Amino acid sequence: MKIARFSHAGTIAFGIVDDDELVVLTGDPMFAGYNPTGQRLPLVDVALLAPVIPRSKVVGLGGAFYPDAAAQETAENAGTPPELSFFLKPNTSVVGPNDPIVLPAQSADVRVEGELAIVIGRIAKNVSLADAPGAIFGYTIANDVTAADLQEQAGQAARSKSFDSFCPLGPVIDTEFDPQSTHIQGRVGETEFVDGDLSLLAFSMAEIVSFVSHAFTLLPGDVILTGSPSAAAPVTDGDIASIEIAGLGVLTNPVRRAA
Amino acid sequence: MKIARFSHAGTIAFGIVDDDELVVLTGDPMFAGYNPTGQRLPLVDVALLAPVIPRSKVVGLGGAFYPDAAAQETAENAGTPPELSFFLKPNTSVVGPNDPIVLPAQSADVRVEGELAIVIGRIAKNVSLADAPGAIFGYTIANDVTAADLQEQAGQAARSKSFDSFCPLGPVIDTEFDPQSTHIQGRVGETEFVDGDLSLLAFSMAEIVSFVSHAFTLLPGDVILTGSPSAAAPVTDGDIASIEIAGLGVLTNPVRRAA
Repeated sequence: MKIARFSHAGTIAFGIVDDDELVVLTGDPMFAGYNPTGQRLPLVDVALLAPVIPRSKVVGLGGAFYPDAAAQETAENAGTPPELSFFLKPNTSVVGPNDPIVLPAQSADVRVEGELAIVIGRIAKNVSLADAPGAIFGYTIANDVTAADLQEQAGQAARSKSFDSFCPLGPVIDTEFDPQSTHIQGRVGETEFVDGDLSLLAFSMAEIVSFVSHAFTLLPGDVILTGSPSAAAPVTDGDIASIEIAGLGVLTNPVRRAA
Repeated sequence: MKIARFSHAGTIAFGIVDDDELVVLTGDPMFAGYNPTGQRLPLVDVALLAPVIPRSKVVGLGGAFYPDAAAQETAENAGTPPELSFFLKPNTSVVGPNDPIVLPAQSADVRVEGELAIVIGRIAKNVSLADAPGAIFGYTIANDVTAADLQEQAGQAARSKSFDSFCPLGPVIDTEFDPQSTHIQGRVGETEFVDGDLSLLAFSMAEIVSFVSHAFTLLPGDVILTGSPSAAAPVTDGDIASIEIAGLGVLTNPVRRAA
C-alpha cells in the first residue's frame, strides 16, 4: 500500500494511491487506521507533501553501506561489517516532493545524497531483531542534504545537515516495499550522480532499527535515513535534484539560493 | 514568573509558582496564556515534570564559554570570541526533576554537565539581535548528560548525547530570569564539580538565539543548552546529580544503571 500526504483545495489529508487516483482517508493511517472518506481525487490534482512529519527525530546513518561489492565480499568473509554511526536532523529540515532545497548563505558547497528511509510506526526501545520489523511502518525516499564545507569544520557537523529544507522526503510511504536488491538512482538535472545498489547495505532493516532503538526510544513518525551507497553530488541555484528508487517512485526537488 | 509542569492525582497540568503553592493553569501558558483554573496546590503535593516538552529539538552549544576570566579578557581585547558550534539532542532524551539518569549498557563513562537552558516561545527564523529576545519564553536548568567514551569515537558524537534520560530539564521555567552575573553550581553527591560563572559566556542570549535561528527555524518549546563553563563530572550507579543556578532553583536527578 502506498500512502501519500497531500494538500488539495486548502486542506491537508492522507490518501492511498490507487493507480492515478488517491483514496482519501479520514486521518493519518499511522494512528487512525485506513478509513476512507469515500472521496477519490486524481493524483494530478493534488500537491504531494512529505508523507510523514517526524514528531521527534530524523536519524541519519553512517557506515551502513559497503563501498563496493569487492569490499562487501572481503568483509563478509572476514566477519567484519562496518561500524554503524548516526547523526540527527531536526524535523524542521523536512520538506516534501517539489519543495525547494534552499541553499543557505553560510555554505558554498551544498550536496545531495539519495537514500532509502525507514518510517517508524510504533514506539520502539531496545527492540530485538525479531521484533524490529514490527516497528517499521513503511519506506520512503530521502534526500540527505549537507553543507559539505561546514561539515568539514570542527563542531559543525550537526549544523551542516540541519538547515531548513535539508531533508526532502517522499513522494509516498510504501508499507510493502522490499528493500532487497533494488537500486537508488540520483540525478542532478540530466547528470546521474549515483546508481547505487541496496544489496551493498551491510545491515538488514531489522538490524538497523534494533541498533537505533538501543540508542534511544523511537516514536511513530520517526525516520531513519539508511545512508548513501555512493558519493554526494554538489548542487547550485537552479538545479533539479531527483532521487529514484524502483518501487518507491521519484523524489524531485528544485534547488534555490536563499533570498 | 516561574512556571512548573506537574502531575497530581493522575493528571498533568501547568502552574505558576506562588511561594510554596502552585496556581494551576488551564493549559500550557506558552500557547494558551495564563488562565488560572482557580485551584491552588501545595508544591509538596505535586510531582514536578520537565517544564517544557520540546516538540522539535534540543540544541546544545559548544564554544559559548570562555575557559576563564584571563582568556575572556585576552579574547575580548583582541576581538576574537570563540566560535560557536552545536549539536542536537532528541526530545526523547528529556526527563524531569528527580527522574533517573539511566546509564546505558553501551557506555562505561557517563558524565553530567550543568547548563543554563533557553526555552523558545515563538517561531524564530533568521532573527536579528533586536528581535531575538522576543523569541525567548524563559530559562530553565539543564543537565547535558554525555557518554564520554562514545563521544571520543569517530561518528558517535550524536549517539553519545542522545540516550533516553540524557537531558534532564527543570525544575521550572523562569520567564523573568536575568542570565547576567550568576553562577552554575553542580554537585555529584556532596562533591562540587562546577562553580561556573555565567559572566564567562562569550555571547549574549540574543546572539545565541540569532545564531541558532540562522541554522534552522526554532519552534515554540525548542530548548537551547548554552554549554558548560567547566568540566563534566563522571557519575555511577547510585549517585545523585544536582545542578543549581541562583534564581532558577536546583535540578536533581538520581543516577541508575540500566536494568
